Amino acid sequence: MVLDAWHVQVKNADEVFNSLSDKQLSKEIAPGRNRGVYLLGHLTAVHDRMLPLMGLGDQRYPNLHKTFVEAADKTVIDLPTLEDLRNYWKEVNNVLSERFLKMPVNEWFQKHNAVSDVDFAKEPHRNKLNMVINRTNHLANHLGQLILLKPKDAEA
Amino acid sequence: MVLDAWHVQVKNADEVFNSLSDKQLSKEIAPGRNRGVYLLGHLTAVHDRMLPLMGLGDQRYPNLHKTFVEAADKTVIDLPTLEDLRNYWKEVNNVLSERFLKMPVNEWFQKHNAVSDVDFAKEPHRNKLNMVINRTNHLANHLGQLILLKPKDAEA
Repeated sequence: MVLDAWHVQVKNADEVFNSLSDKQLSKEIAPGRNRGVYLLGHLTAVHDRMLPLMGLGDQRYPNLHKTFVEAADKTVIDLPTLEDLRNYWKEVNNVLSERFLKMPVNEWFQKHNAVSDVDFAKEPHRNKLNMVINRTNHLANHLGQLILLKPKDAEA
Repeated sequence: MVLDAWHVQVKNADEVFNSLSDKQLSKEIAPGRNRGVYLLGHLTAVHDRMLPLMGLGDQRYPNLHKTFVEAADKTVIDLPTLEDLRNYWKEVNNVLSERFLKMPVNEWFQKHNAVSDVDFAKEPHRNKLNMVINRTNHLANHLGQLILLKPKDAEA
């Protein structure tokens, strides 16, 4: 069920990104707020980092983290192209999907790498499955913002 | 873990609603889009309906559904006051919290009332726990929009 919810949100995000032109993605979701291109990079960077955090391999695009997580939008001038970002987004989610499928059931209940051994002993729910729950909500959160970039009569 | 994620999102929403003045909640999240007051009513109506859908009792405020789910924002003139809506929101979530606590573990895996017996036989994951997962994502989705009502330097 948790993985289903993850895949539904990723699919919804794919549909939103595919429906938005580069021009639309370059706009702010609301006056003075993050642009679509920043949120695309932000979500890609956060999902990419799930690979090492969940013990599923190395990040594919480690450079994205600085630009799209540590830095705020419009503070970094030299961004990847939207074409590249769209491809990174798809690739990172495809890799995650494949690795999720191959993960043995018991591993889902093991600790992820963003929590220390000491904390995990106290809070055993901070496992890999829980990271997927949290990242699904993170994605849903930004997806609610991204649909604001669609023309109004196309809004869900 | 699923219930934790639910409670985290409800708590985040409480904080956002508490931090927003009535005046701020009366504004649109982006030009031409839903107002904060509509989203407050919408989330309350959707959560209220979880009571009967999960077999946890009757809706407290069944009238909200027409105004805040069936109707779009700005098409209904006669809305409840923001003071009332803020109270309904708190009450509905408190009732849900109490009932969740009392629910026996096996019941979480029973079907909810928005799915037919036939469909549940085919899709046994459409249970009560799954409804909480979906509603958590629904809440996160709108929460990403509601924070746009905060002054920009207060944004998380």
